[in-house]
Amino acid sequence: MTLTGQHFIAGQRNATGASTFTGINPATGEALPTTFHDATSDEINQAVVAAEEAFYQLQQVDPAKLADLLESIADRIEAAGDTLIQRVMAETGLPEARCKGERGRTCNQTRIFASMARDGSWRQPRIDAADPQSKPGKPDVRTMLFGIGPVAVFGASNFPLAIGVVGTDTVCALAAGCPVIVKAHPAHPGTCEILAEIVTEAVAHCGLPAGTFSMLQSNSNESGAEFVRHPGVCAVAFTGSLRGGRALFDIACSRPRPIPFYAEMGSSNPVFLLPGALAQRSTDIAADYIKSVTMGVGQFCTNPAIVLGLESEHLESFVSAAAEGAAGYQPQTMLHPGIYQAFESGRQKIAATSGVSQVAVSQAESSGTANEAVCQIFAADFSVLDATEELEEVFGPTSTIYRCQSKDQLLKFARSLDGHLTATLHGTEEDLTEHADLVNILQHKVGRIVFNGFPTGIEVCHAMHHGGPYPAATHSFFTSIGHQSIYRFVKPVCFQGFPSSALPEALRQ
Amino acid sequence: MTLTGQHFIAGQRNATGASTFTGINPATGEALPTTFHDATSDEINQAVVAAEEAFYQLQQVDPAKLADLLESIADRIEAAGDTLIQRVMAETGLPEARCKGERGRTCNQTRIFASMARDGSWRQPRIDAADPQSKPGKPDVRTMLFGIGPVAVFGASNFPLAIGVVGTDTVCALAAGCPVIVKAHPAHPGTCEILAEIVTEAVAHCGLPAGTFSMLQSNSNESGAEFVRHPGVCAVAFTGSLRGGRALFDIACSRPRPIPFYAEMGSSNPVFLLPGALAQRSTDIAADYIKSVTMGVGQFCTNPAIVLGLESEHLESFVSAAAEGAAGYQPQTMLHPGIYQAFESGRQKIAATSGVSQVAVSQAESSGTANEAVCQIFAADFSVLDATEELEEVFGPTSTIYRCQSKDQLLKFARSLDGHLTATLHGTEEDLTEHADLVNILQHKVGRIVFNGFPTGIEVCHAMHHGGPYPAATHSFFTSIGHQSIYRFVKPVCFQGFPSSALPEALRQ
Repeated sequence: MTLTGQHFIAGQRNATGASTFTGINPATGEALPTTFHDATSDEINQAVVAAEEAFYQLQQVDPAKLADLLESIADRIEAAGDTLIQRVMAETGLPEARCKGERGRTCNQTRIFASMARDGSWRQPRIDAADPQSKPGKPDVRTMLFGIGPVAVFGASNFPLAIGVVGTDTVCALAAGCPVIVKAHPAHPGTCEILAEIVTEAVAHCGLPAGTFSMLQSNSNESGAEFVRHPGVCAVAFTGSLRGGRALFDIACSRPRPIPFYAEMGSSNPVFLLPGALAQRSTDIAADYIKSVTMGVGQFCTNPAIVLGLESEHLESFVSAAAEGAAGYQPQTMLHPGIYQAFESGRQKIAATSGVSQVAVSQAESSGTANEAVCQIFAADFSVLDATEELEEVFGPTSTIYRCQSKDQLLKFARSLDGHLTATLHGTEEDLTEHADLVNILQHKVGRIVFNGFPTGIEVCHAMHHGGPYPAATHSFFTSIGHQSIYRFVKPVCFQGFPSSALPEALRQ
Repeated sequence: MTLTGQHFIAGQRNATGASTFTGINPATGEALPTTFHDATSDEINQAVVAAEEAFYQLQQVDPAKLADLLESIADRIEAAGDTLIQRVMAETGLPEARCKGERGRTCNQTRIFASMARDGSWRQPRIDAADPQSKPGKPDVRTMLFGIGPVAVFGASNFPLAIGVVGTDTVCALAAGCPVIVKAHPAHPGTCEILAEIVTEAVAHCGLPAGTFSMLQSNSNESGAEFVRHPGVCAVAFTGSLRGGRALFDIACSRPRPIPFYAEMGSSNPVFLLPGALAQRSTDIAADYIKSVTMGVGQFCTNPAIVLGLESEHLESFVSAAAEGAAGYQPQTMLHPGIYQAFESGRQKIAATSGVSQVAVSQAESSGTANEAVCQIFAADFSVLDATEELEEVFGPTSTIYRCQSKDQLLKFARSLDGHLTATLHGTEEDLTEHADLVNILQHKVGRIVFNGFPTGIEVCHAMHHGGPYPAATHSFFTSIGHQSIYRFVKPVCFQGFPSSALPEALRQ
């Protein structure tokens, strides 16, 4: 397909805005050929108005049609083959295997939500039958979940497929019969256009209203704010930085009619190395640690940026082995020059912190592409961490190991934590028993606790919870990945005293 | 018991603030004897700090102890007998039967949450077993719900027991192991003190940490804001006016660490009279309508303030019968002089609206008590409603009947609705079929749709949903009444790769 640089507004390609931008190939630092237009207020309005209209229709269609739509999207993504993969690679610098792997996950989760749409399992029907004998007569009360309305989606820079135009946010909203308006990520606009064309074609193929889906390009924060401010938008999903997420959250909450703003904003994902595990397998843990720190060039929101261990010779073997791993890491291109620059200044800031020393930095030569990140590991005494007011996430392959003198320091740190997506423990079963109080604290600080593994790589399944207390996410009840993510875009409706014939099928006993 | 006017802060009676207020007997307009102290910042801080400390302990106790606590509270409320009922009556003007009925509901729902605490059914364990054969190896992922942390509760003026110091908010938070800090309602401070003493004694009796419960008196909006601003508070429940709720919601969202603020802020609860029902039983519907409008002196958040019907002779019989009912209503004392004054100016404002005419007003003589509300019913053409920018809830026994000329007008009105707690339809099954499009719209405007009944009187059950889109509530996913209300105060925690021995029991398969 040929990229046009236009939006897809309720089935139509269009772009009237004068302000434009291009994609950048981070591996070369050069602009990619197509010119993309920033969405205008009028275009955003058109998309949302069409979505509002489509919403009532989608809520009435046979859910099997929504399942067909999602399956058709997954099929078309696979059919797009290399055209899609090559554009993702050109816009993100991600290697082919990763892009293909992410495509697999994307299609897989799209089909998961197709089957949820088909079987209606997410609707959670609840039936309380009437009891005319009781006083006062207990009425017949039945409740199930319905889609909330048009959903605005802000995809992530680091998962152009799985958390992008057809990422979890979009497909779970569609499964619940919510029209979606995507604000394309400006770091991979061509990828967004290819995906938006796929969804637009699938919507038409399935005979669903055109307003079911729109995708607008924009490189401006102000138009992002306009999506959130539009009175027709009923919920927003966002994956990105704390700064960006908070700014849009504030807009969502201060609207005349506030709406839920579900942001996943990353975190530092602390790792606790407990003594038994270190004694048994310090070098293996170190190897997996470096693999996790550098996975996707460290551009994962679950990147383990902080490690705490009790001082011992075993901790020092861990540090040495981690140093070796980091030194041998082949520098790789980051997603975007802006992200690369932020990483460079972030790791310099850590290096300049008093009490922090470098453990290792990649020694391998550059492969000759631009915006390449090294892996850099630091170490410091617990006192440095203890004196830190606020943990700032540095997005990229860096991590700091803190040497602690006592179990109390681990507990003190855990208590001081803000919300994080994950915490990780490496230990024996005896370590876990010994540190049960640490686990008890972490339960109220993070969304997911990993034992003897690493937090990067998130299984898409029923039990997954990808979220956590603020600032990991804006609402700790909801997840942005896995089957439960659909609950962000639904609300209960209760029917009291209705005759069976007028009830939705799932409520007819 | 003798009222002291003090707070209960983590088991201790105390009150250091210089600023004071008293309860008022609305039936006489006179101040009641005890002087209550406004909570100081320091006292609020003490209560929240104690709650934070208690939280980690409560999360570790055997849930059966939380069930014991709730059952002990219910038992003690019943044992308090007339002392409690007389004080409620003196502070609210509510008749004895109503106070006793509300006490029954209060104890019933407290015991419902006791049994939920005991059986752990609210924890929703989800287990995804490992699959080492899959690539990459699928890890073991298990998730269940935990309490969110200390919860601040702002009770309602109109349900001093069921939505008060020991109302749903408090008891479902305690069931989830969340300590509670109640800001007492200044309209019934003595009732609050009696209930707080009961909870404090029950907490001590069950050997739970004193910080599990605190109750602070205050007649100032500023100290309400301090509850919401305190960094140790993790969620807030509020029942009251849109103005008050929105002001506190804004504070909760603009905190450095925003927290969920669950407000139920009432609504106008539109009623649609469909032709078949009017033809069959217009006078019966009118009698039930007046009963609903005047229930609790119209001081229910589900009070049906707007009625729409298609012009016909049957609609006129409904209007006549409603007029008769309203005229015969015996005026009754409202909860508080302030509420009475707001009602008086509210109904005068409706009366002064161009195009609105009075259908009837209570003719019965005053029974001689103060702050007595009449029942006043108005009527107008649909065009008046259509020209109304925003429906303002008038809290009290008044309602307006709108005569519509077409089905399209019903649909237009439904589409224009903001969020409401309820909508009601009176019709035959044929009416429902004929007006299926109206029901489809209402599903996205209200939390509960009542057929051939009235919305006042809320069944406490599994399927109940008491909430709705803003401004009925601040988050349409959650309910403030019924079993599901516990989900406001919990969040999932995911355990990945944990050995069975270290998992919470419910996750051990």
